[in-house]
Amino acid sequence: MLRLSQRGQAMPPSPFRKLTPYAEAAKKAGKRVYHLNIGQPDLETAPELLAAVRGVDFNALTYSYAAGTDSYRRQLVGYYERAGIPAAFEDILVTTAGSEAILFALLTCLNPGDELIVPEPFYGAYTAFAIAAGVTIVTVTAHVETGYALPPLADFERVVTPRTRAVLLCNPSNPTGYVYQPAELTALLDFCKRHDLYFLSDEAYREFCYDGAEATSALSLPGSEEHVIVLDTISKRYNVCGARIGALVTRNPAVWRAAFHFAQMRISPPGLGMLLGEAAAALPPTYFDTTRAEYHARRDFTVRRLQALPGVVCRVPGGAFYVMPQLPIDDAETFCQWLLEDFSHEGATLMLSPARGFYKTLGLGRQQVRLAYVLNLTDLDAALTCLEHALQVYPGRQPALVAANDSLIAAATA
Amino acid sequence: MLRLSQRGQAMPPSPFRKLTPYAEAAKKAGKRVYHLNIGQPDLETAPELLAAVRGVDFNALTYSYAAGTDSYRRQLVGYYERAGIPAAFEDILVTTAGSEAILFALLTCLNPGDELIVPEPFYGAYTAFAIAAGVTIVTVTAHVETGYALPPLADFERVVTPRTRAVLLCNPSNPTGYVYQPAELTALLDFCKRHDLYFLSDEAYREFCYDGAEATSALSLPGSEEHVIVLDTISKRYNVCGARIGALVTRNPAVWRAAFHFAQMRISPPGLGMLLGEAAAALPPTYFDTTRAEYHARRDFTVRRLQALPGVVCRVPGGAFYVMPQLPIDDAETFCQWLLEDFSHEGATLMLSPARGFYKTLGLGRQQVRLAYVLNLTDLDAALTCLEHALQVYPGRQPALVAANDSLIAAATA
Repeated sequence: MLRLSQRGQAMPPSPFRKLTPYAEAAKKAGKRVYHLNIGQPDLETAPELLAAVRGVDFNALTYSYAAGTDSYRRQLVGYYERAGIPAAFEDILVTTAGSEAILFALLTCLNPGDELIVPEPFYGAYTAFAIAAGVTIVTVTAHVETGYALPPLADFERVVTPRTRAVLLCNPSNPTGYVYQPAELTALLDFCKRHDLYFLSDEAYREFCYDGAEATSALSLPGSEEHVIVLDTISKRYNVCGARIGALVTRNPAVWRAAFHFAQMRISPPGLGMLLGEAAAALPPTYFDTTRAEYHARRDFTVRRLQALPGVVCRVPGGAFYVMPQLPIDDAETFCQWLLEDFSHEGATLMLSPARGFYKTLGLGRQQVRLAYVLNLTDLDAALTCLEHALQVYPGRQPALVAANDSLIAAATA
Repeated sequence: MLRLSQRGQAMPPSPFRKLTPYAEAAKKAGKRVYHLNIGQPDLETAPELLAAVRGVDFNALTYSYAAGTDSYRRQLVGYYERAGIPAAFEDILVTTAGSEAILFALLTCLNPGDELIVPEPFYGAYTAFAIAAGVTIVTVTAHVETGYALPPLADFERVVTPRTRAVLLCNPSNPTGYVYQPAELTALLDFCKRHDLYFLSDEAYREFCYDGAEATSALSLPGSEEHVIVLDTISKRYNVCGARIGALVTRNPAVWRAAFHFAQMRISPPGLGMLLGEAAAALPPTYFDTTRAEYHARRDFTVRRLQALPGVVCRVPGGAFYVMPQLPIDDAETFCQWLLEDFSHEGATLMLSPARGFYKTLGLGRQQVRLAYVLNLTDLDAALTCLEHALQVYPGRQPALVAANDSLIAAATA
């Protein structure tokens, strides 16, 4: 009998799509569904990017060099320089979105059975990439009470084994919105140096920091050259999620070369996407001002509304466009399905991501959801009003298991 | 000390790029270099495809469904139907070029350490994908004397082990140009059924068959549903190598679902490439007439010139745009480097792919090269004239190790 491979069987369906059939049924039944469940913003792609594609003037779309076109890589040097990240032409490998950068980094740095330390909650697709690469994810747990700050270094020390090869961090964090502080990153880099580990830094949301904060790239830390591999993508930065263009950036030439050999395997990254990328890298840093202001307003609005709900625990996240509150409910998966199947307010409901898909440790995140503030303020208002009403009538309502929100707000403003 | 993974160390540089520095040096020295070494045709992309991209009328390039857009998959059903391949909407998974289809098929069907039987010579990148997936390639050898026809089934039976999980065939073949006959494919399918193996069929060159021949898709064989996985790409078909759009097609729902879960990991295939794909799938089958006629003329010209060279062994390949002659030389790698470094004829030379990169068995293909007839007839003429002169003066000239060409031509026309 024909059998699938073990990894083929182990590869889970996307935890973010499990509820899709319920959302579709709700829509068929005439409900309006506000999608706060996925990181697909409602903003437009920067017009300069689409203009670049409309202006295509070549007669043949040929292979490029496996590391990307020279012209795009040169543009990226400028982009990284403006972002305060020291990356030369030869440090940059253009990839098919951030996804491929993650996969190439795992394949390059870890053997099957090797261990990768990731603070949980983490971007759910890391699980899938780890299965594809045969790598074991080992977690240290961040907590809602601290706004999902980096867990204490002692927690990392506790899970290191002879099989540990790397640490993976998403900064600013998807799914929590936490922006890691320079001191946290420096401490983590020291930890990596002490244990001979690679430091994989997923920086997809670099520009989206609020309250005047700035995201620190792991690659800009002194002494990071050998250890750090930045995993990057233009998807969120310019609202071109469908372009599938990213980059793997490292100042470790041996890592670059091995990753490049994986890149040669698939010959070249998407050619039209690189045209978008070139136009994007030519945009001035002020391009981000409008988008950042928009997300800033959405974050403030969302968090204010969430913190006003009885029993909801939510610290103010500093970046990305996600927030991961704790809700006074029995089980987030049940609740999110109930929202779609059994609830509506004025003909509408909302879709959220249950946090379970962001944790490896069973049982964690049971009361948490990820909310992506990717809709405009009017829709966000309507969606959060739905949530407010839903929490009043949800049959599985339960007190939150952690400290009340007030104390957190007090702590945050202290 | 930081170390690369074993697979990172094992991943070879592309065997097709090893000579690139010599080609660059030759050009810098003022030589014209005819590139017959890579499958990048000099033809234009079908204008309808580029028009589709220039006409982009949306404001945001968003994620698509992981299996590709519904509209493109619907178009592909029509394309496959016209190609005589039974593939329903739900059998089609749009991939990031044929490369990703190969990777997903290996990850889905084989465990690390499992064995994949591939007739050699084979497309060199298969080696890289096998390393990435931790799969062992086991070869059966095809021979220049038979035009690289399928090796006898007895050879396949001899290498089957309990770890064998699949057979991989490229039809029409890159690098040999051989078009597998229906009887060969049926026998191979029977073999796969007997041993519970998947039949992975790379059909990138489907439309490029000459002398009125047609390529038989493995998926069109009766009883192939459970076993066959077609690996496909639009790269060569419409001269859009840079689009990075392909497909994995299977009528085995369990395989499709597992491959789909790998696809969900990277969220979606390239959006702009799918626009090209849609425009391509809407082209009538007559679109291929011009391209096919052009390659047919190039093949005839190339093979005639090669067969006229003393000591060169070359049967007439039925498809793709490659030919893999045996040359009267000591070593193809040395010869190809010599062509770039030490030879020129009227200020020009040519670049070929030494066959070693297409073999797993050490020592095979030592006198063979792959020649891609991707240049126009004028350039081909000049390139083959270079080759003719080069073979007269090459210091490592040696008699061919196999039967003289005359007997092959006689056999072929008998």
